[in-house]
Amino acid sequence: MPENIDVLITHAHLFTMQGKGVGYIPDGAVAIQGKHISAVGSTSELKARFQATETVDASGCAVLPGLIDAHMHTSWAIVRGVAQDVRNWMQSALAPYARHLTPAAALAGTRLDILEALKAGTTTLGDFTKPFPGWAEAFEEAGVRARLTPTINAMPPGGMVGWKVGDLYPLDSEVGQQSIDAALDFARDWNGSASGRITAMFGPQAPDMLSREQLLEVKRIATREGLMIHMHVAQGDREIHQMLKRFGKRTSEYLDKLGYLDEQLLAVHLTEATDEEAALIAQSGTKMALCSGSIGIIDGIVPPMRAFREAGGLVALGSDQAAGNNCNNIFNEMKLTALFNKIKARDPEAMPSWEVLRMATIEGAQAIGLGDEIGSLEAGKEADIILVDLNAPNLMPVLDAPIRTIVPNLVYAASGHEVKTVLVAGQILMRDRQMLTIDEAAILTEAQSQAEAIAQRVAADPIHKNMALLSAMQAGQM
Amino acid sequence: MPENIDVLITHAHLFTMQGKGVGYIPDGAVAIQGKHISAVGSTSELKARFQATETVDASGCAVLPGLIDAHMHTSWAIVRGVAQDVRNWMQSALAPYARHLTPAAALAGTRLDILEALKAGTTTLGDFTKPFPGWAEAFEEAGVRARLTPTINAMPPGGMVGWKVGDLYPLDSEVGQQSIDAALDFARDWNGSASGRITAMFGPQAPDMLSREQLLEVKRIATREGLMIHMHVAQGDREIHQMLKRFGKRTSEYLDKLGYLDEQLLAVHLTEATDEEAALIAQSGTKMALCSGSIGIIDGIVPPMRAFREAGGLVALGSDQAAGNNCNNIFNEMKLTALFNKIKARDPEAMPSWEVLRMATIEGAQAIGLGDEIGSLEAGKEADIILVDLNAPNLMPVLDAPIRTIVPNLVYAASGHEVKTVLVAGQILMRDRQMLTIDEAAILTEAQSQAEAIAQRVAADPIHKNMALLSAMQAGQM
Repeated sequence: MPENIDVLITHAHLFTMQGKGVGYIPDGAVAIQGKHISAVGSTSELKARFQATETVDASGCAVLPGLIDAHMHTSWAIVRGVAQDVRNWMQSALAPYARHLTPAAALAGTRLDILEALKAGTTTLGDFTKPFPGWAEAFEEAGVRARLTPTINAMPPGGMVGWKVGDLYPLDSEVGQQSIDAALDFARDWNGSASGRITAMFGPQAPDMLSREQLLEVKRIATREGLMIHMHVAQGDREIHQMLKRFGKRTSEYLDKLGYLDEQLLAVHLTEATDEEAALIAQSGTKMALCSGSIGIIDGIVPPMRAFREAGGLVALGSDQAAGNNCNNIFNEMKLTALFNKIKARDPEAMPSWEVLRMATIEGAQAIGLGDEIGSLEAGKEADIILVDLNAPNLMPVLDAPIRTIVPNLVYAASGHEVKTVLVAGQILMRDRQMLTIDEAAILTEAQSQAEAIAQRVAADPIHKNMALLSAMQAGQM
Repeated sequence: MPENIDVLITHAHLFTMQGKGVGYIPDGAVAIQGKHISAVGSTSELKARFQATETVDASGCAVLPGLIDAHMHTSWAIVRGVAQDVRNWMQSALAPYARHLTPAAALAGTRLDILEALKAGTTTLGDFTKPFPGWAEAFEEAGVRARLTPTINAMPPGGMVGWKVGDLYPLDSEVGQQSIDAALDFARDWNGSASGRITAMFGPQAPDMLSREQLLEVKRIATREGLMIHMHVAQGDREIHQMLKRFGKRTSEYLDKLGYLDEQLLAVHLTEATDEEAALIAQSGTKMALCSGSIGIIDGIVPPMRAFREAGGLVALGSDQAAGNNCNNIFNEMKLTALFNKIKARDPEAMPSWEVLRMATIEGAQAIGLGDEIGSLEAGKEADIILVDLNAPNLMPVLDAPIRTIVPNLVYAASGHEVKTVLVAGQILMRDRQMLTIDEAAILTEAQSQAEAIAQRVAADPIHKNMALLSAMQAGQM
């Protein structure tokens, strides 16, 4: 007597990501009841065991765990394209727009970014921002999984205006305390909400943006509340300079001495960490979020991720912010991570496709502390699943033996638009490229309108005359 | 009294690529009569001047010259995904498939690749292959522009079987002569055919694959026939080793002494050229084809393109072959070229987006000798034009001032699937993603069928047991 279930996905090239590789099952199937996976196996076996309300035929598709984007600043999608091909991008290109970002514009950016990411197969979004009204609700309503970190820092509003490279930032402990309190309130309101789809992390923006005392207070609170810490670490020469000037130590030594390096910490970027520092951080149990595209475009740097992993560290991928990286797409991050690291090592065998696929799925889930819930397709885990259409010309042909070509083609040839159907916690959010929970046209219209309003405010603000890219505009290069 | 024309494209974000930048015209229009552009200007101006049989509304689209892919091996798309993440990819991964490539399979691969490239906005395909029946006809029938180079070399059939790294290749002058004769016949048959859409180049595969005498004969014939030479140059340590062992010189010195470096030559890759060698080659007037994705994945190397351009050289982009690079997409090449070179220079200002867009259009056209015909949108040039839908979530919002975001977003955020409509020589080949000259379903079916047949022959051939990627298969990594 077959068991009743909600959804049965059949006839898939199934990549469960179980075990140490990609866990391939030919003609595979996934049974889903409620928000959980009931079983994974061959289509014939699962068809015999289950009676489904809805059957999703995945013939010609790769079926994978939903992709995990561990580190994003979704609201910045509202000014996608204003800050690249420049040095000191934040001060010289983004800052004039940041001054004029309203809460409504930030929300429009977040909604746009959720749409972009979901259409490219990202099901878990690790967002990091100063909260604004509607932020968490945007993820809740879209139906995606989110790991949300409200920014904690002691930087006074507008504190970067007039700040010069080389000066110490002004730090204000009252501002720091307010952001700590607000982040705690946010975590208590939202952690575990939407049946567990929305969870919170606790986020000191960076070790140079809080006093030693407040950084330690953040850790005490996070520990007490059972929250992971999500923090930018060694994110650029600016940070290293601040650390040396204020604390007399480089970031990794400072955090090590403070007892900050442990399994509770998700360290983002490590742009300026040496291989030795990366290994030290990894050995402490700290996890890493690697943003290949963003750091490549902003800094021209490939972070020491391989040294981190070789020391036993777990790594998740992140797309960071669209104002610099210009897209939030984990297919893009997988490809860039593989290629950048081959180039860094001058070795085509460095960072093979299956390893970056693991970083985008099971290893990423483990790195952000959700390894028991998501990241692989197995009974008991939540049903975050994507179907990728392998009949796109750029993914054809599909060969199975003696060499199976699907994983290399997903990493090196796919761009994300081949994602056909997306489920999160058992709910179908996109079916055959149609969004079921998101009003795509309304989101695009609102984003365009909000972005134009920001651009008008920037144009009216004399500060815009200092923008580095104005010379490219004047030279007809943009 | 308005002039009658065939097509008027209106309301575009028009990037003409005229002048030294991107030649932007807001609310721009392009008038097309027959295969040529009649005029470029504002929509209001051209609407007053022309009466069109068909008006294409490009509202919300960027309109650009069709992209140029200077160096491809289209037939290898038939085994996309069998040769990456390995050292010596050609011998250890591709060779077993190469042994079993039939002419029919090669043709199926070429047709698949034309489809893939066209859907991603490539209108000029620079293909390089040992000819097979139907090769040139595939480009002619699809309606794309092609620059075709039949391989010339003196490598006996199967000559690489049993060849060991370090040994000199066997060279057979009769084989060389046959390939020279065949290439000449091909050029006489096809150069300038299909109303000039199909042109030929003359292609010694590489300087280490012909004797000195035959290499010189190729140049004499090419000069006599008015053909450009398209050749792999310094394409890997294998070549440099052959050159030193057989001729006692590195490639650039050998070619320089032979009088081979001049404006007639399109040199592909320069993987192993030093910056000094690249500058020497550029100063001779030689052009370069840069295959960033392919060389990144195959060798983990960023070729010395910036040194080449800084010495005054012209550079076109190429996607090489899908068995290694896994995709043939100039949006991919633009992004990788910008990012790889930022990383190589550790400088975010290296290779800005507008420069790579020029390499994919006007500079690429000049590099392959078609600078008078294509590469920019201006009166008198052929109408090779693409419309890119900027309403894709990953390209939104669209800002115009004070910073115009379109070019950075095309380079860093677009993936090619945003290309909506494509014209070549005034003919619409794709309209709203629908192929008008290509039977997409038939091509995909034939490619899958031919690929499976190759894979079966490989599986039955004992040589497949030496394939490097078999261990990844056995470890469950593919």
